[in-house]
Amino acid sequence: MYTPADEKFLNPLRAQLPARVFKEISENYLREPRGKFKGCGELLCPENTEHVSIIVSAAAAAGVAVIPYGGGTGLVGGQVSEELENPIVLSLERMNRVRAIYPFENTMVVEAGVILADAQAAAEEKDRLFPLSLASQGSARIGGNLSSNAGGLNVLRYGNARELTLGIEAVMPDGQIFNGLTRLRKDNTGYDLRNLLIGAEGSLGVITAATLKLFPRPRSRATALMVVPDPTAALSLYALAGDILGQGISAFELINETGLQFLHEKIPHIRQPFEIAPKWSVLVDVGLFQENSANQGIEALFEAGFAAGLVLDGVIAQNQAQADQIWNVRESIPEANRLIGAIASHDISLPLSAIAEFTNIAPGKLAELGEFRINCFGHLGDGNLHYNVYPPKGGNRDDYKAIAPKVSRVIHDLVAEREGSFSAEHGVGRMKVGELERYGDPAKLAMMRAIKTALDPKGIMNPNVMLRR
Amino acid sequence: MYTPADEKFLNPLRAQLPARVFKEISENYLREPRGKFKGCGELLCPENTEHVSIIVSAAAAAGVAVIPYGGGTGLVGGQVSEELENPIVLSLERMNRVRAIYPFENTMVVEAGVILADAQAAAEEKDRLFPLSLASQGSARIGGNLSSNAGGLNVLRYGNARELTLGIEAVMPDGQIFNGLTRLRKDNTGYDLRNLLIGAEGSLGVITAATLKLFPRPRSRATALMVVPDPTAALSLYALAGDILGQGISAFELINETGLQFLHEKIPHIRQPFEIAPKWSVLVDVGLFQENSANQGIEALFEAGFAAGLVLDGVIAQNQAQADQIWNVRESIPEANRLIGAIASHDISLPLSAIAEFTNIAPGKLAELGEFRINCFGHLGDGNLHYNVYPPKGGNRDDYKAIAPKVSRVIHDLVAEREGSFSAEHGVGRMKVGELERYGDPAKLAMMRAIKTALDPKGIMNPNVMLRR
Repeated sequence: MYTPADEKFLNPLRAQLPARVFKEISENYLREPRGKFKGCGELLCPENTEHVSIIVSAAAAAGVAVIPYGGGTGLVGGQVSEELENPIVLSLERMNRVRAIYPFENTMVVEAGVILADAQAAAEEKDRLFPLSLASQGSARIGGNLSSNAGGLNVLRYGNARELTLGIEAVMPDGQIFNGLTRLRKDNTGYDLRNLLIGAEGSLGVITAATLKLFPRPRSRATALMVVPDPTAALSLYALAGDILGQGISAFELINETGLQFLHEKIPHIRQPFEIAPKWSVLVDVGLFQENSANQGIEALFEAGFAAGLVLDGVIAQNQAQADQIWNVRESIPEANRLIGAIASHDISLPLSAIAEFTNIAPGKLAELGEFRINCFGHLGDGNLHYNVYPPKGGNRDDYKAIAPKVSRVIHDLVAEREGSFSAEHGVGRMKVGELERYGDPAKLAMMRAIKTALDPKGIMNPNVMLRR
Repeated sequence: MYTPADEKFLNPLRAQLPARVFKEISENYLREPRGKFKGCGELLCPENTEHVSIIVSAAAAAGVAVIPYGGGTGLVGGQVSEELENPIVLSLERMNRVRAIYPFENTMVVEAGVILADAQAAAEEKDRLFPLSLASQGSARIGGNLSSNAGGLNVLRYGNARELTLGIEAVMPDGQIFNGLTRLRKDNTGYDLRNLLIGAEGSLGVITAATLKLFPRPRSRATALMVVPDPTAALSLYALAGDILGQGISAFELINETGLQFLHEKIPHIRQPFEIAPKWSVLVDVGLFQENSANQGIEALFEAGFAAGLVLDGVIAQNQAQADQIWNVRESIPEANRLIGAIASHDISLPLSAIAEFTNIAPGKLAELGEFRINCFGHLGDGNLHYNVYPPKGGNRDDYKAIAPKVSRVIHDLVAEREGSFSAEHGVGRMKVGELERYGDPAKLAMMRAIKTALDPKGIMNPNVMLRR
């Protein structure tokens, strides 16, 4: 169906592009982080937007499939295809320049291949904050973050990747360059193509650069871990935090005892704040601008929460080292999860009002299928939970392969009944296309197909991502 | 080209819809606020989303044009067509229910016909803030606000209409209902159709309802008017405000002496804070959560600004009445402008770094065309200026009709050279289609046309808005 990127296709390109654009492909481009997908392909590493345009134009003319590749950290197989016969793997890794920083404007123009941590560092160097923050930030690249509309730890206050982007430059599926690299906060001159391409997972074009929003760095920061009776209390505490601290809350993360036990079991050198893992706790992070105000604010929240019976116990970090220690616990949970090995992981979101009922009901529904351990944790303030299901202690995930789809069906059905989402921040990729077909609004799917066909009539851009070809 | 909405078309609809949906059309549906456009049409006032779907399906089948109508306050002719022969004017005024408020979630579901001020009041009743705020909020409706991605006074802190919307329900150009009324903060399951429809000015479908974001109401508020030497200093003061107050700044509005003089001349009963109108001043509004912190913060800003030579004089409101008085001055300037009568108005945005140079250069460039008075004011913190050009004192705008397009060309060329926008918040409508063709990125225009054709192949939705048919 697609033309393979063979020598007949590549040779004319070699005449137009420097030899170093053509690179031997290695295993890491062909396998996603958990080894769930395994692909093949011809690696091209363009050095500028013109190169991308030349490659995509040629691919469009010949009918060669193009898989845009960022840092390779995606969790839904958007970066690896098992079905395609020698597509182009288009890595933006050499387009890794920070083109410009405007501290005065709180904007920064970066190429798609900039590693997220490097973007954060570039902002910090100018005493500014680029707030997108997630576990894989040391290898994830901005282009991938935008294409997947990445979420992470600071969404509560600063929004997803989408809300952090003012403009983009992209190469369209016919090779045309879309120059939408605006630094404007307000611009109502046409359809919102920026947001259409952000989150399209490379299926409508290749994002080559972006103008990102920067923020003043809060002068006063505070971090606490508060033990709560249950998720209902955690949500009431979150509402209380809004009343006391307004938009000063940067993170409000739910932690479950199972996660802390996994951590104790698999990464025992990480120091945990409590001897015995509390059943439920929340990590609260506050950033304000007046001196010492964050600490005062978080103490006021602790006291008010304690008085209301929403907080049972807790620690407030007294210095940066203690804050880092609390954050380290939260950020190491995904690695501990990986070492335990999940039967099925879920990246769900729910309306805040539906969360408590869901967390009450779900374990019982799952128990009908067998005995499991559940680690329910994540970005509670955003309504985004990672609801991961594991074998009982001593069990092995490989014995549960047959049951895994049933587990996911139970969870996703419960979520859909409560108007939630089966993919809050990870995206659809190739892994969740079936879920989108099952749970997606029919008018939405019809519009998506119409747009895909209109912008990419040959279907060369990241085939089978989001929509089945 | 389009079938008129004549009796042959309407009769089958009468059999399907209540008689009260069909209403005699009056002048106010056919003329935009400044009388620049005059249309005709058949008024239909559906009472629910099903009605809208029935009407649009019939229009699509018959090839009848549909003009979605909100509060009629748009300034670019998106709501009135002079060219169409008896289109449907589809007013959402009867779909004016607040469907639900979830204070705990900070969300609210409203129908498109809800008047903006009523949406604000519904939020306030639950001790929440819906921050979209603009001059016409007493008659503008949510559907129109979203379709035009309205901006206004609080964009700095809370964003445009787009950033304030979590989900939408809409009727597509074929009559299908898109159910995207999610209350989720995070949902990465497909293309961003919400943002495609928001700001599409009714050319891709009819927004029938929306889930809006609410916010905690800041407990401590403060307002000041600070006299500054020039726009450069105003921008430095804005940067200083970011360092001192972070995201606590709700508004940062530039005011020019010309605006205050117009106000004095045309609406003299409005009390102004200064005897002699200062050449440049800024209205600063702060909202914080800890008691008295806003007043302390604004005083700290005043002192730091004064010490740095950025503030020459000023008043800090000592109570709500004084704050209202300062706001009243700012909000009455557009009405004074209208009474004076502009030769040409411009709703421009610029990168913050380019503003000072623009405001220095533009008057000289305009002087080459003749003698004018300029009122340059607006949402400085957003980079959005209303740059309006008037005849000299005693002159009449009618004598300047021939020169008006030249004035706009000078301004818009200067803006485009500095990577600015010719429409920051008002949109394109029918009035600025030519400007979009002139200044728009070719790849962007090609994508817009492809999307329009894909979603609305018969071109029935608000024809000639955004794109020429």
